[in-house]
Amino acid sequence: MWAELLPVGRFDASGGYRRHAWTAADAECRAWFEQQAADRGLHYELDRNGNQWAWYGDPAAGGAVVTGSHLDSVPDGGAFDGPLGVVSAFAALDALRERGFAPVRPLAITNMVDEEGARFGVACVGSRLTAGVLTKDQAYGLRDADGVRLPDAMEAAGQDPSTMGRDDERLSRIAAYVELHVEQGRFLAETPHPVGVASAIWPHGRWRFDFHGEANHAGTTRLEDRRDPMLSYANTVLSARKKARLHGALATFGKVSVEPNGTNAIASLVRGWLDSRAADEATLTALVEEIATAARERAERDGVRAEVVRESYTPVVDFDAPLRDRLAGVLGAGTPVLPTGAGHDAGILSSVLPTAMLFVRNPTGVSHSPSEFAEEADCQAGTAALADVLEDLTCR
Amino acid sequence: MWAELLPVGRFDASGGYRRHAWTAADAECRAWFEQQAADRGLHYELDRNGNQWAWYGDPAAGGAVVTGSHLDSVPDGGAFDGPLGVVSAFAALDALRERGFAPVRPLAITNMVDEEGARFGVACVGSRLTAGVLTKDQAYGLRDADGVRLPDAMEAAGQDPSTMGRDDERLSRIAAYVELHVEQGRFLAETPHPVGVASAIWPHGRWRFDFHGEANHAGTTRLEDRRDPMLSYANTVLSARKKARLHGALATFGKVSVEPNGTNAIASLVRGWLDSRAADEATLTALVEEIATAARERAERDGVRAEVVRESYTPVVDFDAPLRDRLAGVLGAGTPVLPTGAGHDAGILSSVLPTAMLFVRNPTGVSHSPSEFAEEADCQAGTAALADVLEDLTCR
Repeated sequence: MWAELLPVGRFDASGGYRRHAWTAADAECRAWFEQQAADRGLHYELDRNGNQWAWYGDPAAGGAVVTGSHLDSVPDGGAFDGPLGVVSAFAALDALRERGFAPVRPLAITNMVDEEGARFGVACVGSRLTAGVLTKDQAYGLRDADGVRLPDAMEAAGQDPSTMGRDDERLSRIAAYVELHVEQGRFLAETPHPVGVASAIWPHGRWRFDFHGEANHAGTTRLEDRRDPMLSYANTVLSARKKARLHGALATFGKVSVEPNGTNAIASLVRGWLDSRAADEATLTALVEEIATAARERAERDGVRAEVVRESYTPVVDFDAPLRDRLAGVLGAGTPVLPTGAGHDAGILSSVLPTAMLFVRNPTGVSHSPSEFAEEADCQAGTAALADVLEDLTCR
Repeated sequence: MWAELLPVGRFDASGGYRRHAWTAADAECRAWFEQQAADRGLHYELDRNGNQWAWYGDPAAGGAVVTGSHLDSVPDGGAFDGPLGVVSAFAALDALRERGFAPVRPLAITNMVDEEGARFGVACVGSRLTAGVLTKDQAYGLRDADGVRLPDAMEAAGQDPSTMGRDDERLSRIAAYVELHVEQGRFLAETPHPVGVASAIWPHGRWRFDFHGEANHAGTTRLEDRRDPMLSYANTVLSARKKARLHGALATFGKVSVEPNGTNAIASLVRGWLDSRAADEATLTALVEEIATAARERAERDGVRAEVVRESYTPVVDFDAPLRDRLAGVLGAGTPVLPTGAGHDAGILSSVLPTAMLFVRNPTGVSHSPSEFAEEADCQAGTAALADVLEDLTCR
C-alpha cells in the first residue's frame, strides 16, 4: 500500500514531493485513495469541499468515528507528513477486520484536501471549509502563484466548486475525529515511546513584511544615496531569530520575493513572510510585535517603508480533554502527551467536533523535507495504537 | 522620435520597461531603429551578432566613427538607459546635416544587442561577441530563467545564431566608438555642467553566494536543531554593506532565490547574487574576499555550507586617453571628466578599439528604475555635444 504511493509526485532532483492541491500528482493520490476504498468494499464519498471519505458502516447511522489525514505535500516535502495517517488508517482497519471487528457505530477514513496550503497560501482548506472557518467567498478569492483561482483549479480537476462551504449535515454524523501523524519534532525521540497523544497545537500565524525601497543601479548609486530594502529585510531576519530565542518561541523567514530581482539593481521591494509560533497567545503576540517594531526601526534608518500584514492566524488549540485522556488510557500508562507547533486538520475541526491526534516518533525531528523519516517498526506501532483506539471508540 | 519609442515594452504596473533581448518588446525597438535608418536614407545593416547599424557614408571606406548605445532594458528599467544614446545619435546626425555636414570618413549609428544581460545573465552580449570576449560556444551555453537557450531565442526572433562570433572585418572598418549615456550617479548633478566625459569604468563583477542548509518544518523544529541558510544570507547582506562602506566601494545583493520558498518551511537553499565594484581591482578583490570570509564564518555557525562562485568579472577600463582628451577639448574648458561604476558596450569594445563616452546629467542619480530621468534641456545639450564631437571626428 505504502509502496504504491511512494513514487507519486516525487521530484528526482530533490527526492522530495510536490503533491500540491488539485494538480496531477494530487489527482493520482486521490485515485489511489478511491482504489483503496474499493479494494476493501468501503462506501466511497467525495464531499462538497473535495475531501474524500471511505465508509465502513452506514454513514447515516450517526455517531461515526473518523480517522485519516491528507495526501498533499509542501514543496519538496517528505513521504510521511499526511500519507502516514491515511495509510495507517487503512492498515488499522485491515488489522481490526482480521481480528473480527464488530463496531456498534460507523467508521470513516478520510483524505482532507489541501492541508498544506502550498498552492493557494491557506492551510487546511478542506477542513476549514467544512467547519465554516473559511467561507466559500474567501476560497473563491484564493489564487496560486500563476494566478489560477482555487475554484478554477478545482473545476479543472473535476470538482464542482459551487457547492463549497460549511457542511453541517456531514459534521452532524461524526462523534470523534482522530488523526495520526508523524511527529515533527524530537519529543518522542528522547523517550522510549514510539507513539504519543497530542495535548495542544501552539497558536501560530503568518505575517507578510513588505519593505518598500527604491530601485536603482547597483553599480553607480552611492551607498549614502540608497534606499535598499534588502538591508532592512536582512536585519529583520536576524532580529526575529534572536527575539524568538529570548521568548522560547519560533520565528522563521522561509519565503522571500524581490522586485525587480536583478543582479545589478538595488531592490525596490523585498517581501518576506514570517511564520511564528509560541506556547501561548500572549507570548506570540508580544514576539511578533517586537519583530515588527525592529523591522520598522531598521527600515526608517534605511529610508525604507516597512508594512506588516497578518495573513493568517490560528489561536491555540487544546484538544478535547476526555477524548485525549481516553486515547492515552487505551495506549497505556506512561504514554507521552505532547504539544506541537504544527497546524493540522484535527486542529481546525476541533472547533466543531471532539478531535484528537496520535504522533509517531521521528528520530531526527526533520519534517517538510525529503529526509523526513519514521522507522518501520514505529509506523507499525502507530498503526497498532490507532487500531486499538478505533476499536475502543467504535465498539463500546 | 523619442515619443514613438516611449510606449514600447512599458509595464503599466510599475511604469518601468521590460525590453529584454530577443523578446517582442525588443523586436519593436529594433523595428523602430530600422525605420529611423530608412527615414534618413541611411544604409541599414544587421551584423552577425545581432547588432544593428545605420551607415552615413560608405561602410567599406574605413576609419569610420561609430556612435550609439542599446535599446534593451533591465527588468522595470527607466526610459533613458540605452535609448538616450541611440536617439541622441540620430538627432545629432540630423543637426549636422542641417548645418551642411561634409564628413571625410563614414559615420555609423548602432544599437548593440542585449547590453543589460537581463535575460541571459551576461551583460553586453552583442559587444562581447563582436570583440571576441564572449565566444560563440559560451553564448550557446546561455539560458534564460525559463530554460530557453540564447541561440534558440535569437532564431525565434529571426536572427541566425550560427554566424555569431568575433567580427574582425567589421572592427577593422572602425576608427573610434563614442557612446552617449545618461549618468547613473550624481557627479554632474553637483556641477553646472549638463555633459561630461568618461575617464574609466570601475572594475566590477557578479558573485553567486549559495547557502546550503536543511529544509525543515518552521512550526516544529527547535531553533537549536535548525540549519537555516536564511540567517547566513541575512548576515552576509549586512556585512557586505558594512565592508563596502569601509573600502569606499559598492556591494549590493539585489537578487535572491530560495528553495523551497514556502512560508512554513525552513529554507534548504538560499542563493544570493553579489554585485560589487571599486575604483581599483586590488580593492575589489580584497572587498569580495572579506565578504566571502564573513559568509563562510557565519554559515559555519549556522550549520550551513557556503559556496561562492564568481559568475562574471570585468577588469578596470581606462578609456582611450587621446580620444577622451579630444572630446573634452571639443566640449570646452572645465568639462567634467568622471569615472563610472556601470559597465557599457564602450567599455567592452575598448579592448579592440579606441572608445569614449559622454554622460548626460541625471538630477537624482537614479537609474535602472522607472524614475530614471534627465531634463530635456540636458538631453539637448548632450545631443549638441555629441554632434560637435562627431563633426570633429569625421570632418578633420
